[in-house]
Amino acid sequence: MAISAIDALIHQLSRLPSVGQRSARRMALALLRNKESTIPPLVAALSNALSQIQTCDVCGNLDDNSPCRICADGSRDPHIICVVEDVADVWAIERSHVFRGRYHILGGTLSAMDGRNPATLRIDSLIKRAHPEEIQEIILATNATVAGQTTAHYLTERLSECNVRISRLAQGIPMGGELDYLDDGTLLAALNARAPM
Amino acid sequence: MAISAIDALIHQLSRLPSVGQRSARRMALALLRNKESTIPPLVAALSNALSQIQTCDVCGNLDDNSPCRICADGSRDPHIICVVEDVADVWAIERSHVFRGRYHILGGTLSAMDGRNPATLRIDSLIKRAHPEEIQEIILATNATVAGQTTAHYLTERLSECNVRISRLAQGIPMGGELDYLDDGTLLAALNARAPM
Repeated sequence: MAISAIDALIHQLSRLPSVGQRSARRMALALLRNKESTIPPLVAALSNALSQIQTCDVCGNLDDNSPCRICADGSRDPHIICVVEDVADVWAIERSHVFRGRYHILGGTLSAMDGRNPATLRIDSLIKRAHPEEIQEIILATNATVAGQTTAHYLTERLSECNVRISRLAQGIPMGGELDYLDDGTLLAALNARAPM
Repeated sequence: MAISAIDALIHQLSRLPSVGQRSARRMALALLRNKESTIPPLVAALSNALSQIQTCDVCGNLDDNSPCRICADGSRDPHIICVVEDVADVWAIERSHVFRGRYHILGGTLSAMDGRNPATLRIDSLIKRAHPEEIQEIILATNATVAGQTTAHYLTERLSECNVRISRLAQGIPMGGELDYLDDGTLLAALNARAPM
């Protein structure tokens, strides 16, 4: 017997991240309960995303255009590049409104175990962007994980020949953090990077 | 500035049940990372669901055809009807393979507070199906919640004139349940319905 349209829908929904069979069934039922008002806009959004969204040739961001709206925004500082692992990191920083420069998205971290070497990341294009006459500072904003920090160290080495100031995000106690609940690594980093009052 | 295709996609995904902004963003990124292999099958499944899935005229189930494959399945016992609140309940019972009769989906429970009166449920069509010459037993399998049990009592009253045997699911200790962890209501129901060894 052919697979039913419901089972096919549940299967496709269950391929989304952190959606199991149970959630997929709930989603399918929710969609089917008001299908005329829920499915067409979702299909339209998916189809538009498929046809319109592209990777920015400059920074690797996802947007309707290339260069993306951040690279094309003349009001943003073109002299500072913030290097992040993923598009989600760009979104996180943009939500906080704390950075007005531009970005460079690596597309992941180096990981010998997972076979991600420098050639699989967007590193060569970062080196090409890092002209001292255009760029004043490159902020390495990879995650504070082993893979993220390894990648940051590798980038520091590669970028050293470019003659551009390189910095990284400060490590320490998060806002509202209580010492009693912090891990040893964070405490050590906060102590080592202590600042004068 | 027009809303970007990414924001539109995130908005549509966040309308799915138990999907917040954060999950929607993760889903959108996961879809866009391999968009050629993920989005077209999802769009196809959604479009097929929209065009093909209909409500079974007999029992209220959702399927590609009406009558649904359960109502149309000649190998199933046509003399027993299991009355459930929702299509998800049909799926749960079907997964357990413990029932070989047919179903009737009410489409919810009675609830004066939420304005769900008997006319909003699929009750009249259940009464019409309940001919004593065709149906031997109607199993009321509404949830063991206040609303579910209220609905079951109302149905018992309405079906009393139909001259058909009416039963409900047993209440008691679930398999593997430990007395120490059971709520008082379940313990009371299990004690009242105690069976001889």
